[in-house]
Amino acid sequence: MYRMTGALLLSMAIALAIGPKLIAYLKKLHFGQTIYELGPSHQQKQGTPVMGGLMMAAGILVSSLVCHPARWDGGWDPIIPLLAVAFLSMAVGFADDYIKAVKKRHDGLSPWQKIAGQVIVAVAFSVYCYLNPNIGSKIRIPFIRTEWDLGIFYIPVMTLLTIFIVNSSNLQDGLDGLLGTVTAISSSAWAVICMMLATIPALAAGTDIPGAKVTAVFALSMAGACIGFLRYNRYPAKTFMGDTGSMLLGGGTVAIAMVLRLPLLLILIFFTPIMSSVSVIMQRYYYKLTHGKRIFLMSPIHHHFEKKGYSETQIVSMYAGITTILSLIAIISIGG
Amino acid sequence: MYRMTGALLLSMAIALAIGPKLIAYLKKLHFGQTIYELGPSHQQKQGTPVMGGLMMAAGILVSSLVCHPARWDGGWDPIIPLLAVAFLSMAVGFADDYIKAVKKRHDGLSPWQKIAGQVIVAVAFSVYCYLNPNIGSKIRIPFIRTEWDLGIFYIPVMTLLTIFIVNSSNLQDGLDGLLGTVTAISSSAWAVICMMLATIPALAAGTDIPGAKVTAVFALSMAGACIGFLRYNRYPAKTFMGDTGSMLLGGGTVAIAMVLRLPLLLILIFFTPIMSSVSVIMQRYYYKLTHGKRIFLMSPIHHHFEKKGYSETQIVSMYAGITTILSLIAIISIGG
Repeated sequence: MYRMTGALLLSMAIALAIGPKLIAYLKKLHFGQTIYELGPSHQQKQGTPVMGGLMMAAGILVSSLVCHPARWDGGWDPIIPLLAVAFLSMAVGFADDYIKAVKKRHDGLSPWQKIAGQVIVAVAFSVYCYLNPNIGSKIRIPFIRTEWDLGIFYIPVMTLLTIFIVNSSNLQDGLDGLLGTVTAISSSAWAVICMMLATIPALAAGTDIPGAKVTAVFALSMAGACIGFLRYNRYPAKTFMGDTGSMLLGGGTVAIAMVLRLPLLLILIFFTPIMSSVSVIMQRYYYKLTHGKRIFLMSPIHHHFEKKGYSETQIVSMYAGITTILSLIAIISIGG
Repeated sequence: MYRMTGALLLSMAIALAIGPKLIAYLKKLHFGQTIYELGPSHQQKQGTPVMGGLMMAAGILVSSLVCHPARWDGGWDPIIPLLAVAFLSMAVGFADDYIKAVKKRHDGLSPWQKIAGQVIVAVAFSVYCYLNPNIGSKIRIPFIRTEWDLGIFYIPVMTLLTIFIVNSSNLQDGLDGLLGTVTAISSSAWAVICMMLATIPALAAGTDIPGAKVTAVFALSMAGACIGFLRYNRYPAKTFMGDTGSMLLGGGTVAIAMVLRLPLLLILIFFTPIMSSVSVIMQRYYYKLTHGKRIFLMSPIHHHFEKKGYSETQIVSMYAGITTILSLIAIISIGG
């Protein structure tokens, strides 16, 4: 109880505290991202430093280790895999940001380098989960509260899922405060679900969840970090999280979902980032199929809404509302 | 499970659906509130219709009745007292809005008329809770998970609390989307706490909570209504909720807290509205004590932040962050 509260508050405090110095440092290093094709009328954002996501990384890392007990109830402890997926995903994004911003090479990592890094993380984590007796190849089906054994297909399906979620998170990060707000809400929802699973074994479809409390600490440290970061990232943003931050949050989110054996809940809780990916895919295929027509004025879909005349804060508010509604439904499916 | 999901979605859908017609109707009736002394530089808001809170009222009333089972587990059913406190509190605010906007009498209800209405509701509800065997004079102490028997003092203390919370809610309603956002988050937190109490008797300090599921349905219908309403109330607002809406939300919130015997959690979950009240009281007494000095540039404190140069959306974002953090701590105190 006190460790969970501590993780939430410590993580927020760290992000808030190092924010100003980090932003000043990033500016000094000329870490301002060059804005090309990032969206309508964002030219004025030139000069806002990226890699602000590092303040969330510090908050999550320190608070989930400090508030993590050496031996929690003697049960299984998923903190290392959770941190590993989040921070290795971040490493890929960081490399990209670093090359773009410090080396001033506009192209960053090549698409193949990015994908290769993500595939390594995703395959390793999927195999780890498959072999771990506390996770295995059975995933939970929410609402009807049963399980589905994917067998050996667990590994390729979850590899693709991990890559898809990390990139969805990355694609949604295009407006001031957007991904930070969505992930603050989604991480809070995951924390609530962890608490429910940890205290209501009956709800967990007849199985106990070792490590659900550890996962709650991790999810709360993510929520706290996002809320602290939003202090500097809300409109008008003083810093962007960069690929560093978006891949950290995407990696952390998919790791939580898989450790809890609830990847299907991502469809609800992480709906809006998934929508960002799907809108890009739809736009691309429709364009190819029709030889030049577009479904959306611009993709990802949040830029479509911008072109339609909605302000950044209106779009963030809309995404926050959708994420809250769908996260509540996910929570109801577990504990309602 | 499906009734809870239904309450959330139906309530939001009703608020969204009747919004445009209600706003047009209110405008037609010249329901634009005259803006006097409401805050810095809000003159341009002249003409925005008040009483938009009626769309939340419709959502909450219909969805909490439709999604409410005739007999829920055969246990105690608190739906009538919950609705009564919310809607009778609303009636006082509605009378005030109606006189101001339709009768064009700028003074509205006299302070004594308002207080008299609130006292009647508050005393009646406190006595009802005191006499109800499912509530009684014992309140829960979060974190240490014990109880505190207030005895006969329960009635005056809870009467004052009810009046205080309804007025706090009313005082916070001064910026586009502010109270709606805060109450969307706080109602979601109450819903989660209800689910935890309903499914984890062990966490409920050794006592069962009859009606926690009914209260969850009510809290979810409040959350859904707020999110639907925010579609029209977020910056730049197309309608204000008015005293109608703010007293409805304040009444509904205090009713949930008292039915669950968790009034102490209001300090966390409803911290920012309470802060609004406290800032007004501090400002007034400091002014009297020092014969003319002020603590805040303007009270309630959200106008102080406005005068400091924060935009409306920045203040809403800050209040949302604070409410999320404190609501998570409240949830942890019950189910963590």
